[in-house]
Amino acid sequence: MNDIVGCPGFKAAGVAAGIKKEGALDLGLIYTDELAAVAGVFTRNRVQAAPVVLTKQRTALGKGRAVVVNAGNANCCTGDRGLADALAMGAAAAQSLNVDEAGILVASTGVIGEPLPVDKITSAMPGLAAGLTPQGFDDFSKAIMTTDTRPKLLRRRGQINDRAFHLLAVAKGAGMIRPDMATMLCFVCTDIGAPAGMLQEMLKLSVDQSLNRITIDGDTSTNDMVLLLANAKSGVSLNTPEQQRIFQQLLDELLLEMGRTLIGDGEGVTKVVELQVRGALSDADALRVADTVAHSPLVKTAFFGQDANWGRILAAAGRAGVAIEPDRIDIFFNEVQMVRSGQGLGPRAEERVTAILREPEFSVTLDLGQGDGSATMLTCDFSVDYVRINADYRS
Amino acid sequence: MNDIVGCPGFKAAGVAAGIKKEGALDLGLIYTDELAAVAGVFTRNRVQAAPVVLTKQRTALGKGRAVVVNAGNANCCTGDRGLADALAMGAAAAQSLNVDEAGILVASTGVIGEPLPVDKITSAMPGLAAGLTPQGFDDFSKAIMTTDTRPKLLRRRGQINDRAFHLLAVAKGAGMIRPDMATMLCFVCTDIGAPAGMLQEMLKLSVDQSLNRITIDGDTSTNDMVLLLANAKSGVSLNTPEQQRIFQQLLDELLLEMGRTLIGDGEGVTKVVELQVRGALSDADALRVADTVAHSPLVKTAFFGQDANWGRILAAAGRAGVAIEPDRIDIFFNEVQMVRSGQGLGPRAEERVTAILREPEFSVTLDLGQGDGSATMLTCDFSVDYVRINADYRS
Repeated sequence: MNDIVGCPGFKAAGVAAGIKKEGALDLGLIYTDELAAVAGVFTRNRVQAAPVVLTKQRTALGKGRAVVVNAGNANCCTGDRGLADALAMGAAAAQSLNVDEAGILVASTGVIGEPLPVDKITSAMPGLAAGLTPQGFDDFSKAIMTTDTRPKLLRRRGQINDRAFHLLAVAKGAGMIRPDMATMLCFVCTDIGAPAGMLQEMLKLSVDQSLNRITIDGDTSTNDMVLLLANAKSGVSLNTPEQQRIFQQLLDELLLEMGRTLIGDGEGVTKVVELQVRGALSDADALRVADTVAHSPLVKTAFFGQDANWGRILAAAGRAGVAIEPDRIDIFFNEVQMVRSGQGLGPRAEERVTAILREPEFSVTLDLGQGDGSATMLTCDFSVDYVRINADYRS
Repeated sequence: MNDIVGCPGFKAAGVAAGIKKEGALDLGLIYTDELAAVAGVFTRNRVQAAPVVLTKQRTALGKGRAVVVNAGNANCCTGDRGLADALAMGAAAAQSLNVDEAGILVASTGVIGEPLPVDKITSAMPGLAAGLTPQGFDDFSKAIMTTDTRPKLLRRRGQINDRAFHLLAVAKGAGMIRPDMATMLCFVCTDIGAPAGMLQEMLKLSVDQSLNRITIDGDTSTNDMVLLLANAKSGVSLNTPEQQRIFQQLLDELLLEMGRTLIGDGEGVTKVVELQVRGALSDADALRVADTVAHSPLVKTAFFGQDANWGRILAAAGRAGVAIEPDRIDIFFNEVQMVRSGQGLGPRAEERVTAILREPEFSVTLDLGQGDGSATMLTCDFSVDYVRINADYRS
């Protein structure tokens, strides 16, 4: 599966609490020996699940001891009972770990609108806590999966002043992923030492360029969060701008890679597409065009069909609300130019592009020919299986 | 098929010019004996096909004699040659009809980015013109189809001061339909008498409440237009506000019905859903929420799966960029309430809603509980066949 050995000072575990069907792992716990500094980024959806409300408040305090997560039920649109259940889930973890309740961060993912089977969770908690090990992230990563087909666990090792530090990220994704929010459940552990305020800034910077730049279906979840816990176990602190730069870069790399991993396992995804827009009048214009093209069902179904239908890409760009000039636009698939000045380059180019579209990953570049603005997003195709998965999600 | 007998003073025809495969009708012509006043609404996509550019200019003159339309090729992203081809298509029609070229309105629909086979069109034109008959709208309606599974032809009869007048609308739609633009090819003929400026205002009013409120996949075409031709043949003129009101109402009804017809034949559509948002702080807020819910792939795949997944509807409303308050929201499917104050009403309600979702048409109402703003849109499900149709469109 994965030869991840964890992150110093952190332990994790996953058990089957009976929330998912058929005895699958569905309850996970991350614990840090030392109280960690905590940063978080949360969904901007107006509908926010109870655990998001609770964990936002606790993250604002800047300190965390553990993260407890269930899959199979989102505990969202569950009213006062939902908040009580999220609190109870946290309290059970605090009790089993014998730590302060305020340091327990709670997350849920799964179906919206059904009461959380909180008794199953509290019953499973002592066993979950007892099972914590440094190698337990493997089980944890499985316990937080919903329609994911594989667990998502990444690790990086960095060095500052000849001393090593570590970063570990574990996430669940698959559907309902769009930019401009946290986009999924993602938990990042590091043994670096840094104050919560600094971590918060760094996390936001990283997420804006990585997890906020990926899209599967354009929907946004009620439960998304990215948490960063830093327990200082490495003895390395971020005291100078250069040290911060080194950590930031590693965090960026890790979350970019996680973004690619999430897209690659998107619901029904058969193509991962890096969409680059350049030559825009501003970065904001470029992002708007990229966002519109990345979400176009017609573009995405053409990717699925391996169809070099560049007209749909142009048409989507044309409705982005940006003053593009169609007859200045060039379009490339990988390095192959398919459109020059808004017109197709004919069957020979199309043949080469069609070969590229048969690959599982490729890039599409739109050069708007207007200025220096640019933006990059990761998107994917829209497949028959996406529809099947989402039509049958609750059955 | 359809026992439409046309509209007084108008003739139409459709022939197979060889643009589509397998000898299907692909070139249509509408002609009016008397020069007609003309109004038009056009796509707001920045990428506009050559015929759109041309017909916009000619519509601005306010007079029209004929509409010539081909399917199978959009004549879009075709550069200077595209404009020359659109002009040639109009010139051929003018010559065959022996009328002024400036009165010929040109439209195209089909694949983007391939040169228009204009020779086939000019060759077929004399035969097309010779075949014009008052009953020819049936063939015309077939000639403009692309992925439509059936022709779309509607007719209304009205009365002003005991004198009858007529309205006939013919359209093609199926995919790439979203609001806030003309949304498809639609040609409306009437024997009423009215100046072009008045018709333009009336058409815009009507379209904003009908054809601009329907969505299939959220993509917008490069070729869309709605044209209204009024030839005054009935002898009825719109001189008073009351007369205008009568005509406006009939036009509204006709285009609303056409909107429903287009959605019902959307690509892969198995469910037609009237989505009503009420209780918003403003109509604009209501429309924004309706628009977001109507385009959500997760909501649309749940409709396809006949799944009463109201959580997805709430989650989509939550990301609309409107300050909704989730715990004030009620949701109804037809008359059955499924959500009260942001929470589900349980298995009994869900059973009743699931039965409703098995029907081919139903309504979904979101009451935001904040004010008096409201908006209605027509949307549809997202099916496996939608993906199949669009993945294979060009092959």
